[in-house]
Amino acid sequence: MNSRLFSFCGGLTGDWMVTSIRAICGETLPDAERLHIHQGLGNAHEALSSDTKWFLRGVTSNDRYVTRPEKELLVARQAPLGRATATHAALIPIRKSAAWWAMTQDERRALFEEESHHIKIGMDYLPAIARRLHHCRDLESKEPFDFLTFFDFAPGDEPLFDRMLEKLRSTREWSFVDREVDIRLKKVTPT
Amino acid sequence: MNSRLFSFCGGLTGDWMVTSIRAICGETLPDAERLHIHQGLGNAHEALSSDTKWFLRGVTSNDRYVTRPEKELLVARQAPLGRATATHAALIPIRKSAAWWAMTQDERRALFEEESHHIKIGMDYLPAIARRLHHCRDLESKEPFDFLTFFDFAPGDEPLFDRMLEKLRSTREWSFVDREVDIRLKKVTPT
Repeated sequence: MNSRLFSFCGGLTGDWMVTSIRAICGETLPDAERLHIHQGLGNAHEALSSDTKWFLRGVTSNDRYVTRPEKELLVARQAPLGRATATHAALIPIRKSAAWWAMTQDERRALFEEESHHIKIGMDYLPAIARRLHHCRDLESKEPFDFLTFFDFAPGDEPLFDRMLEKLRSTREWSFVDREVDIRLKKVTPT
Repeated sequence: MNSRLFSFCGGLTGDWMVTSIRAICGETLPDAERLHIHQGLGNAHEALSSDTKWFLRGVTSNDRYVTRPEKELLVARQAPLGRATATHAALIPIRKSAAWWAMTQDERRALFEEESHHIKIGMDYLPAIARRLHHCRDLESKEPFDFLTFFDFAPGDEPLFDRMLEKLRSTREWSFVDREVDIRLKKVTPT
């Protein structure tokens, strides 16, 4: 099993309560009460259970667009997932169009950063918003999305997070997004 | 199942006779008599059979380094796999070091092309040498290699192919290759 693999299981169990599921573009995902995040393949029983409404997987991987100076700024500013204050979160699965994937590396980079300022926009919201990006396009299974990004933040920073998404979604890069679902989450308090 | 997935099964069956298996760097692969190439996951029975000596998988994917002008030159010159004259072939599985994957995109591109001329070297051997690159690093399973490249060519072009490999293996990019196996193949003539 790839040690960089994470599974996201929407169903009845898990540490995160699903507060909303909203399609931004394309088809939505079915409602689920909880999100269970596994490092690895997860639980085969859970994946196949009728209580499971969706089961998404992705791997963290090497940087695809970032340059060394950008990386150093990111590393200096970013916070890790799982801070005690980060009790709100979002899982945002995205698929990009065939036109995006047909572009060469230089064309995608120019659109991603020089034109759309994806890295620069994200940078303005560090360290409040922590994130982990997972790639799904090159798994052996056919996946419904190309990327899964998991974000966490303090409840008071959710408006900040919404502002960041609004900026990103207004870029030309986002005109290549053909499916996007916005799943909001709240940490379940142990009882 | 990902429609871009290919499986390479070394064992007793398949259209390609294995003429040699040689480790260039790191551990070799066990001897096998034949190579069976499947589009897709292949045959579960075959993958698990004791006759199977190794079972490698990878997906074709979007371009990672090539620029648009380079891509246009490649597309104009390259030949497809499977020409009637291309009765010799090679499968070359490669793994790159952690240091390679820790680099940012601009650093990897500079090393790959500006310093090592990977694309430029390959270009000189088109259309004689046809190739298909498969990525294995971001599959859900832990794979022994990062890339599988399958090449085919006419028997008379094998010395040309060897010259190309010699040039590539002498580049600084190759100092980041920590496992490489060179598997040579000959098409089985239907009887």
